[in-house]
Amino acid sequence: MEVALIGYTSDPELAIATAARVSSSSTTAPELLRKLTRDQVDSLIKQLISRGHLSPFEHASFTFAISGISRVTSHQLVRHRLASYTQQSQRYVSLKKLNYVIPATISVNPEIESKYHEAVRNAHQLYLNMLDADIPAEDARYVLPQAMETNLVMTMNARELMHACSLRLCLKAQWEIVQLFQAIKGEVERVAPRIGAELKPKCYQLGYCDEAESCGIFPTKEEIEVKVR
Amino acid sequence: MEVALIGYTSDPELAIATAARVSSSSTTAPELLRKLTRDQVDSLIKQLISRGHLSPFEHASFTFAISGISRVTSHQLVRHRLASYTQQSQRYVSLKKLNYVIPATISVNPEIESKYHEAVRNAHQLYLNMLDADIPAEDARYVLPQAMETNLVMTMNARELMHACSLRLCLKAQWEIVQLFQAIKGEVERVAPRIGAELKPKCYQLGYCDEAESCGIFPTKEEIEVKVR
Amino acid sequence: MEVALIGYTSDPELAIATAARVSSSSTTAPELLRKLTRDQVDSLIKQLISRGHLSPFEHASFTFAISGISRVTSHQLVRHRLASYTQQSQRYVSLKKLNYVIPATISVNPEIESKYHEAVRNAHQLYLNMLDADIPAEDARYVLPQAMETNLVMTMNARELMHACSLRLCLKAQWEIVQLFQAIKGEVERVAPRIGAELKPKCYQLGYCDEAESCGIFPTKEEIEVKVR
Amino acid sequence: MEVALIGYTSDPELAIATAARVSSSSTTAPELLRKLTRDQVDSLIKQLISRGHLSPFEHASFTFAISGISRVTSHQLVRHRLASYTQQSQRYVSLKKLNYVIPATISVNPEIESKYHEAVRNAHQLYLNMLDADIPAEDARYVLPQAMETNLVMTMNARELMHACSLRLCLKAQWEIVQLFQAIKGEVERVAPRIGAELKPKCYQLGYCDEAESCGIFPTKEEIEVKVR
Repeated sequence: MEVALIGYTSDPELAIATAARVSSSSTTAPELLRKLTRDQVDSLIKQLISRGHLSPFEHASFTFAISGISRVTSHQLVRHRLASYTQQSQRYVSLKKLNYVIPATISVNPEIESKYHEAVRNAHQLYLNMLDADIPAEDARYVLPQAMETNLVMTMNARELMHACSLRLCLKAQWEIVQLFQAIKGEVERVAPRIGAELKPKCYQLGYCDEAESCGIFPTKEEIEVKVR
Repeated sequence: MEVALIGYTSDPELAIATAARVSSSSTTAPELLRKLTRDQVDSLIKQLISRGHLSPFEHASFTFAISGISRVTSHQLVRHRLASYTQQSQRYVSLKKLNYVIPATISVNPEIESKYHEAVRNAHQLYLNMLDADIPAEDARYVLPQAMETNLVMTMNARELMHACSLRLCLKAQWEIVQLFQAIKGEVERVAPRIGAELKPKCYQLGYCDEAESCGIFPTKEEIEVKVR
Repeated sequence: MEVALIGYTSDPELAIATAARVSSSSTTAPELLRKLTRDQVDSLIKQLISRGHLSPFEHASFTFAISGISRVTSHQLVRHRLASYTQQSQRYVSLKKLNYVIPATISVNPEIESKYHEAVRNAHQLYLNMLDADIPAEDARYVLPQAMETNLVMTMNARELMHACSLRLCLKAQWEIVQLFQAIKGEVERVAPRIGAELKPKCYQLGYCDEAESCGIFPTKEEIEVKVR
Repeated sequence: MEVALIGYTSDPELAIATAARVSSSSTTAPELLRKLTRDQVDSLIKQLISRGHLSPFEHASFTFAISGISRVTSHQLVRHRLASYTQQSQRYVSLKKLNYVIPATISVNPEIESKYHEAVRNAHQLYLNMLDADIPAEDARYVLPQAMETNLVMTMNARELMHACSLRLCLKAQWEIVQLFQAIKGEVERVAPRIGAELKPKCYQLGYCDEAESCGIFPTKEEIEVKVR
């Protein structure tokens, strides 16, 4: 898996802070852009988070090149609808080279692991044979395993990144998509550390875990309620 | 593949026509609901279509139970973001029974067909073996072919249905998703014939084909422009 | 202000429960529709809420005729983007009749109240004079006060209704939009009591108040955190 | 009215072209970013437009500071739902200074013009008196005319900008929102001329006018159909 930030709103934290101030002042945005200090930007962002005023975070957008994730994970990923995706087509691109993902629970079991590799290779070989027999790539791909790698470009704004990370950085999420969003978080942190710091599992925002069982970082909602009363 | 309409806005065409009239009159919606005749509803819908005023069509919503489509097709389907999906999970549901799709270009070739069935069966058998070896379903599924069937519930409003059909009923679209939207169109026609009639490839609305090559129903944009001058 | 539910997904709670079950079972939706009992529907909905699994609530859609709200409130309302609106046009409809809203803080002050009525009437009279002088309605309306009433049709699904109510039923929200969503909640309760019951301020879901100051129903997040430690 | 581009995706045209190529090649985005020449970017963008493949345009985002537009126009503007807005609040900001818009059809008529200024000034004076009488700003504003100016920050991606301009640069659109989108187009042209060139009324993309009457630039759909046959 490889994740690279290939484009983003210039000075994303300033854009967010400026927008936030426009809503509560009679100063226009160009003036605010000149006046806001780094400290004010930081403290505005902290305030927005703590009050749950997340809409200004939509003014900062991030575009990622994602390669080498499985179709298992891309199918989950594109369920986040408040984002933009352009994905490698299996209709128009013939996957001559075999690249695929293997889960750790499989690779620790040597006997099963070798059967897994064999099954994937056989399926891909049949795919190639079908292409040779003039079966269109869009039909031949039906035999390909979901482990096959795909490439895509994804754009998400900071608000939706926070939302997606709140779900996908939870340890209950599926391991490959957890890794993907950890890499995404890493890329955001490089260029916008204040935003990057807010990319975390939902329990950090909620103050409790709303899953059936907690991983231990936070108590469940039920446990908190007991303590409060 | 099975498609069943399991819920929809009561009297969807009246809802659309009423909304359309609210925008251009001083009468309120409840009054309009009482007054509008079937003929007025029909003529209002026709007018909205011909002027490209499509937003009132959002007030009619349709919920479909879709079963027996491949993961190839569900991955494409969920790219339509202005809709709601709840899909059978491959993390929480073990696919003990083998159900899968075979493209016609494969089933017409007996030699390849039998290899296809064999490959799918082998992959599924390995999947079952992995479950027996306590590999979680969410990991074992990496070996499953994209041909595997899935079930889902989808809700789309009439405007987005028109948009999705404009793309997916085009003969250049992928065959399985064409079949899916033909079935969807059939279900809508049963309860809302005026809306159902508007579910058609984009060329019918555009008046020309904007693909590189036309299927023959409409001339391409370039051909029209030549004729006009 | 008048709010009337003019259309909705037939049996909205069954649609939601069915969708929820599709995701975690190998049974198809049409079978589930036949099998699910009212008690199962109720308990599924309760479970979805408590785990924060809200996406199945998107499968139930509600269409409201809203009349007699001010343009102050319609401007706020349409900021909820995951909904559909068709609003009375001030470009194409001449507002010959004067209908407007007066806030309670103004009507309790007789002196100011009479000036308010006078100012609104004067503005509307000038509007009528401008129409007589052949100034287009779309320009004459610039003089109209924001208190002027408007009509619209709005469609929202149950998930977005829950979200909008979480913000707009908070006592910190603006009084007219609070009234609007109270009326909307009333309409939903009539036909879908389980969903209606979930339309409430965000503090009920969070378990605390995330505003700067609490209205008293729930402690603030800071107060809870103190108690927990 | 003032419109300033205050943030955007670095090299927006390269981002779009790169995404477009990812969908039809086995090369990853980081490689494509290094390889694509300016001429290839230009020709890819041209191709996407002519085939109506608009989704890659979502990967370029633009953030505008907009000040001095009327509430008439901001109410229309925020109806574009695939965008992000942060608007000056009339609940939390007291509009002590009077800034408002006057339509040209009014300012050409001296008698009406002076009555317009008077009515707006009177309404604003009553607003100030109400603030002095401790009526909350959020209620006092009901008397303010829709002509009052507002400030906001808006983020839209290039695809939605193309869509919004297709509607709002049409000469049938309302004059103030036409001016707004002309200014937006100007800002985009400065930093992304290829995208800026695609911001135009819908008739340029359609090849005909779909309004009831054409402004003359393009024939209506009906006229084209006559010519074709």
